[in-house]
Amino acid sequence: MKLTKIEHIGIAVKDLSVAIPFYENTLGLKCYAIEEVAEQKVRTAFFLVGDTKIELLESTDPEGPIGKFIEKKGEGVQHIAFAVDGVANALAELSEKGVQLIDKAPRKGAEGLNIAFLHPKSTFGVLTELCEKPE
Amino acid sequence: MKLTKIEHIGIAVKDLSVAIPFYENTLGLKCYAIEEVAEQKVRTAFFLVGDTKIELLESTDPEGPIGKFIEKKGEGVQHIAFAVDGVANALAELSEKGVQLIDKAPRKGAEGLNIAFLHPKSTFGVLTELCEKPE
Repeated sequence: MKLTKIEHIGIAVKDLSVAIPFYENTLGLKCYAIEEVAEQKVRTAFFLVGDTKIELLESTDPEGPIGKFIEKKGEGVQHIAFAVDGVANALAELSEKGVQLIDKAPRKGAEGLNIAFLHPKSTFGVLTELCEKPE
Repeated sequence: MKLTKIEHIGIAVKDLSVAIPFYENTLGLKCYAIEEVAEQKVRTAFFLVGDTKIELLESTDPEGPIGKFIEKKGEGVQHIAFAVDGVANALAELSEKGVQLIDKAPRKGAEGLNIAFLHPKSTFGVLTELCEKPE
Protein backbone atom coordinates (compact mmCIF):
# COMPACT_ATOMS: atom_id res chain seq x y z
CA MET A 1 0.00 0.00 0.00
CA LYS A 2 1.34 3.40 -0.93
CA LEU A 3 -0.26 6.63 0.30
CA THR A 4 0.57 9.16 -2.42
CA LYS A 5 -0.73 12.41 -0.93
CA ILE A 6 -3.27 14.07 1.34
CA GLU A 7 -6.21 14.07 -1.05
CA HIS A 8 -8.37 16.25 1.17
CA ILE A 9 -9.12 17.39 4.70
CA GLY A 10 -12.77 17.17 5.74
CA ILE A 11 -13.94 19.99 8.00
CA ALA A 12 -17.38 19.97 9.65
CA VAL A 13 -19.08 23.38 9.62
CA LYS A 14 -22.53 24.42 10.73
CA ASP A 15 -23.34 26.64 7.80
CA LEU A 16 -21.68 26.69 4.37
CA SER A 17 -23.22 30.07 3.65
CA VAL A 18 -21.03 31.50 6.44
CA ALA A 19 -17.97 29.31 6.01
CA ILE A 20 -17.55 29.65 2.23
CA PRO A 21 -17.28 33.46 2.30
CA PHE A 22 -14.69 33.17 5.09
CA TYR A 23 -12.57 30.73 3.11
CA GLU A 24 -12.89 32.90 0.00
CA ASN A 25 -12.68 36.43 1.29
CA THR A 26 -10.50 35.99 4.37
CA LEU A 27 -8.29 33.01 3.51
CA GLY A 28 -8.23 33.77 -0.21
CA LEU A 29 -9.16 30.28 -1.41
CA LYS A 30 -11.68 29.70 -4.20
CA CYS A 31 -14.68 27.40 -3.84
CA TYR A 32 -14.65 25.43 -7.10
CA ALA A 33 -17.55 23.05 -6.43
CA ILE A 34 -20.52 22.46 -4.16
CA GLU A 35 -21.98 18.97 -4.10
CA GLU A 36 -24.64 17.21 -2.08
CA VAL A 37 -23.87 13.64 -1.04
CA ALA A 38 -27.35 12.43 -0.08
CA GLU A 39 -26.13 9.08 1.24
CA GLN A 40 -23.89 10.85 3.75
CA LYS A 41 -26.47 13.56 4.53
CA VAL A 42 -24.03 16.35 3.74
CA ARG A 43 -23.50 19.25 1.42
CA THR A 44 -19.84 19.73 0.59
CA ALA A 45 -17.84 22.70 -0.67
CA PHE A 46 -14.40 22.19 -2.19
CA PHE A 47 -11.33 24.41 -2.20
CA LEU A 48 -7.90 23.60 -3.60
CA VAL A 49 -4.73 24.61 -1.78
CA GLY A 50 -1.56 23.34 -3.36
CA ASP A 51 -2.15 19.70 -4.20
CA THR A 52 -4.75 19.11 -1.47
CA LYS A 53 -8.44 19.89 -1.22
CA ILE A 54 -10.33 21.26 1.71
CA GLU A 55 -13.79 19.75 1.88
CA LEU A 56 -16.20 21.73 4.05
CA LEU A 57 -19.06 19.54 5.24
CA GLU A 58 -22.47 20.88 6.25
CA SER A 59 -25.01 18.44 7.61
CA THR A 60 -28.37 18.15 5.87
CA ASP A 61 -29.78 16.04 8.73
CA PRO A 62 -29.04 16.25 12.49
CA GLU A 63 -28.95 12.43 12.55
CA GLY A 64 -26.29 12.22 9.83
CA PRO A 65 -22.59 11.73 10.64
CA ILE A 66 -21.70 15.43 10.39
CA GLY A 67 -24.73 16.49 12.39
CA LYS A 68 -23.76 14.09 15.16
CA PHE A 69 -20.09 15.11 14.96
CA ILE A 70 -20.91 18.80 15.42
CA GLU A 71 -23.32 18.07 18.26
CA LYS A 72 -20.63 16.08 20.06
CA LYS A 73 -17.43 17.95 19.23
CA GLY A 74 -18.38 21.22 17.58
CA GLU A 75 -17.06 22.45 14.28
CA GLY A 76 -13.59 21.31 13.23
CA VAL A 77 -11.55 18.75 11.35
CA GLN A 78 -13.68 15.63 10.91
CA HIS A 79 -11.49 13.42 8.72
CA ILE A 80 -8.33 13.18 6.67
CA ALA A 81 -8.27 11.48 3.30
CA PHE A 82 -5.21 9.92 1.73
CA ALA A 83 -4.95 9.14 -1.97
CA VAL A 84 -3.88 5.54 -2.45
CA ASP A 85 -3.29 3.36 -5.48
CA GLY A 86 -5.92 0.68 -5.02
CA VAL A 87 -8.38 1.19 -2.19
CA ALA A 88 -9.60 -2.43 -2.20
CA ASN A 89 -6.08 -3.85 -1.89
CA ALA A 90 -5.23 -1.32 0.80
CA LEU A 91 -8.29 -2.35 2.83
CA ALA A 92 -7.28 -6.01 2.57
CA GLU A 93 -3.73 -5.20 3.70
CA LEU A 94 -4.87 -3.00 6.59
CA SER A 95 -7.45 -5.52 7.77
CA GLU A 96 -4.75 -8.19 7.72
CA LYS A 97 -2.65 -5.91 9.92
CA GLY A 98 -5.47 -5.55 12.44
CA VAL A 99 -6.82 -2.13 11.47
CA GLN A 100 -10.55 -1.78 12.15
CA LEU A 101 -12.40 -0.82 8.96
CA ILE A 102 -15.62 1.17 8.72
CA ASP A 103 -16.02 0.21 5.06
CA LYS A 104 -15.03 -3.33 4.18
CA ALA A 105 -15.18 -2.49 0.46
CA PRO A 106 -14.79 0.75 -1.52
CA ARG A 107 -17.91 2.81 -2.16
CA LYS A 108 -18.67 6.01 -4.07
CA GLY A 109 -17.91 9.32 -2.39
CA ALA A 110 -17.94 12.98 -3.39
CA GLU A 111 -16.40 13.87 -6.76
CA GLY A 112 -16.99 10.29 -7.95
CA LEU A 113 -14.01 8.90 -6.03
CA ASN A 114 -13.84 5.35 -4.73
CA ILE A 115 -13.53 5.74 -0.98
CA ALA A 116 -13.41 3.81 2.26
CA PHE A 117 -13.07 4.84 5.89
CA LEU A 118 -10.85 3.37 8.60
CA HIS A 119 -12.09 3.46 12.18
CA PRO A 120 -10.49 6.19 14.31
CA LYS A 121 -10.01 3.67 17.12
CA SER A 122 -7.31 2.12 14.95
CA THR A 123 -5.78 5.38 13.75
CA PHE A 124 -5.06 7.36 16.91
CA GLY A 125 -8.34 9.24 16.90
CA VAL A 126 -8.13 10.37 13.27
CA LEU A 127 -11.08 9.32 11.13
CA THR A 128 -9.12 8.28 8.05
CA GLU A 129 -10.38 7.96 4.50
CA LEU A 130 -8.64 6.25 1.62
CA CYS A 131 -9.59 7.30 -1.89
CA GLU A 132 -8.73 6.89 -5.53
CA LYS A 133 -10.07 8.07 -8.86
CA PRO A 134 -12.08 5.33 -10.58
CA GLU A 135 -10.34 3.77 -13.57
CA MET B 1 -2.21 36.75 1.36
CA LYS B 2 -1.71 33.56 -0.60
CA LEU B 3 -1.91 30.13 1.02
CA THR B 4 0.33 27.96 -1.16
CA LYS B 5 -0.22 24.49 0.29
CA ILE B 6 -1.03 22.45 3.37
CA GLU B 7 2.40 22.49 4.98
CA HIS B 8 1.49 19.97 7.63
CA ILE B 9 -1.26 18.40 9.70
CA GLY B 10 -0.62 18.27 13.45
CA ILE B 11 -1.94 15.14 15.17
CA ALA B 12 -1.92 14.75 18.94
CA VAL B 13 -0.93 11.26 20.09
CA LYS B 14 -0.34 9.89 23.55
CA ASP B 15 2.78 7.94 22.79
CA LEU B 16 5.13 8.38 19.84
CA SER B 17 6.69 4.99 20.54
CA VAL B 18 3.33 3.42 19.63
CA ALA B 19 2.21 5.84 16.92
CA ILE B 20 5.44 5.94 14.90
CA PRO B 21 5.54 2.17 14.28
CA PHE B 22 1.88 2.31 13.20
CA TYR B 23 2.56 5.10 10.70
CA GLU B 24 5.64 3.27 9.41
CA ASN B 25 4.61 -0.37 9.41
CA THR B 26 0.88 -0.11 8.82
CA LEU B 27 0.48 3.08 6.79
CA GLY B 28 3.84 2.71 5.05
CA LEU B 29 5.10 6.26 5.74
CA LYS B 30 8.66 6.96 6.87
CA CYS B 31 9.50 9.00 9.96
CA TYR B 32 12.28 11.30 8.74
CA ALA B 33 12.79 13.40 11.88
CA ILE B 34 12.03 13.56 15.58
CA GLU B 35 12.36 16.91 17.30
CA GLU B 36 11.58 18.27 20.74
CA VAL B 37 10.09 21.75 20.87
CA ALA B 38 10.64 22.61 24.51
CA GLU B 39 8.72 25.88 24.36
CA GLN B 40 5.59 24.01 23.23
CA LYS B 41 6.21 21.09 25.59
CA VAL B 42 6.03 18.54 22.77
CA ARG B 43 8.08 15.94 21.00
CA THR B 44 7.27 15.79 17.30
CA ALA B 45 7.72 13.12 14.65
CA PHE B 46 7.55 14.02 10.97
CA PHE B 47 6.36 12.03 7.96
CA LEU B 48 6.07 13.21 4.37
CA VAL B 49 3.12 12.21 2.22
CA GLY B 50 3.05 13.86 -1.19
CA ASP B 51 3.82 17.53 -0.63
CA THR B 52 2.47 17.65 2.94
CA LYS B 53 3.92 16.60 6.29
CA ILE B 54 2.21 14.79 9.08
CA GLU B 55 3.47 16.04 12.43
CA LEU B 56 2.71 13.69 15.31
CA LEU B 57 2.74 15.55 18.61
CA GLU B 58 3.42 13.88 21.97
CA SER B 59 3.14 15.99 25.08
CA THR B 60 6.15 16.24 27.38
CA ASP B 61 4.05 17.92 30.10
CA PRO B 62 0.38 17.36 31.02
CA GLU B 63 0.02 21.14 31.38
CA GLY B 64 1.27 21.83 27.85
CA PRO B 65 -1.09 22.49 24.93
CA ILE B 66 -1.01 18.90 23.63
CA GLY B 67 -1.41 17.41 27.09
CA LYS B 68 -4.48 19.56 27.64
CA PHE B 69 -5.84 18.82 24.18
CA ILE B 70 -5.64 15.06 24.71
CA GLU B 71 -7.18 15.32 28.16
CA LYS B 72 -10.12 17.27 26.76
CA LYS B 73 -10.65 15.73 23.32
CA GLY B 74 -8.53 12.60 23.12
CA GLU B 75 -6.04 11.82 20.38
CA GLY B 76 -6.70 13.29 16.94
CA VAL B 77 -6.08 16.18 14.58
CA GLN B 78 -4.96 19.17 16.64
CA HIS B 79 -4.11 21.74 13.98
CA ILE B 80 -3.67 22.41 10.29
CA ALA B 81 -0.78 24.47 8.97
CA PHE B 82 -0.80 26.38 5.72
CA ALA B 83 2.34 27.57 4.00
CA VAL B 84 2.07 31.27 3.20
CA ASP B 85 4.40 33.79 1.60
CA GLY B 86 4.92 36.23 4.46
CA VAL B 87 3.50 35.26 7.83
CA ALA B 88 3.79 38.78 9.29
CA ASN B 89 1.90 40.37 6.42
CA ALA B 90 -0.72 37.62 6.54
CA LEU B 91 -1.27 38.25 10.27
CA ALA B 92 -1.74 41.96 9.63
CA GLU B 93 -4.23 41.27 6.85
CA LEU B 94 -6.18 38.71 8.87
CA SER B 95 -6.28 40.91 11.96
CA GLU B 96 -7.60 43.74 9.81
CA LYS B 97 -10.34 41.38 8.61
CA GLY B 98 -11.36 40.57 12.17
CA VAL B 99 -9.66 37.20 12.62
CA GLN B 100 -8.61 36.53 16.22
CA LEU B 101 -4.88 35.79 16.40
CA ILE B 102 -3.12 33.63 19.00
CA ASP B 103 0.27 34.95 17.88
CA LYS B 104 0.39 38.62 17.00
CA ALA B 105 3.84 38.17 15.44
CA PRO B 106 5.67 35.19 13.89
CA ARG B 107 7.74 33.00 16.19
CA LYS B 108 10.00 29.99 15.72
CA GLY B 109 8.40 26.57 15.40
CA ALA B 110 9.55 23.05 14.60
CA GLU B 111 11.96 22.64 11.69
CA GLY B 112 13.04 26.27 12.10
CA LEU B 113 9.92 27.64 10.40
CA ASN B 114 8.45 31.03 11.18
CA ILE B 115 4.97 30.27 12.47
CA ALA B 116 1.88 31.85 13.95
CA PHE B 117 -1.46 30.45 15.09
CA LEU B 118 -4.95 31.78 14.45
CA HIS B 119 -7.62 31.23 17.06
CA PRO B 120 -10.04 28.38 16.26
CA LYS B 121 -12.94 30.61 17.30
CA SER B 122 -12.27 32.57 14.11
CA THR B 123 -11.64 29.58 11.88
CA PHE B 124 -14.66 27.30 12.37
CA GLY B 125 -13.09 25.23 15.11
CA VAL B 126 -9.86 24.52 13.24
CA LEU B 127 -6.72 25.58 15.08
CA THR B 128 -4.88 27.08 12.12
CA GLU B 129 -1.17 27.70 11.77
CA LEU B 130 0.54 29.81 9.15
CA CYS B 131 4.17 29.08 8.38
CA GLU B 132 7.03 29.95 6.10
CA LYS B 133 10.68 29.04 5.75
CA PRO B 134 12.92 31.80 7.10
CA GLU B 135 14.73 33.81 4.43
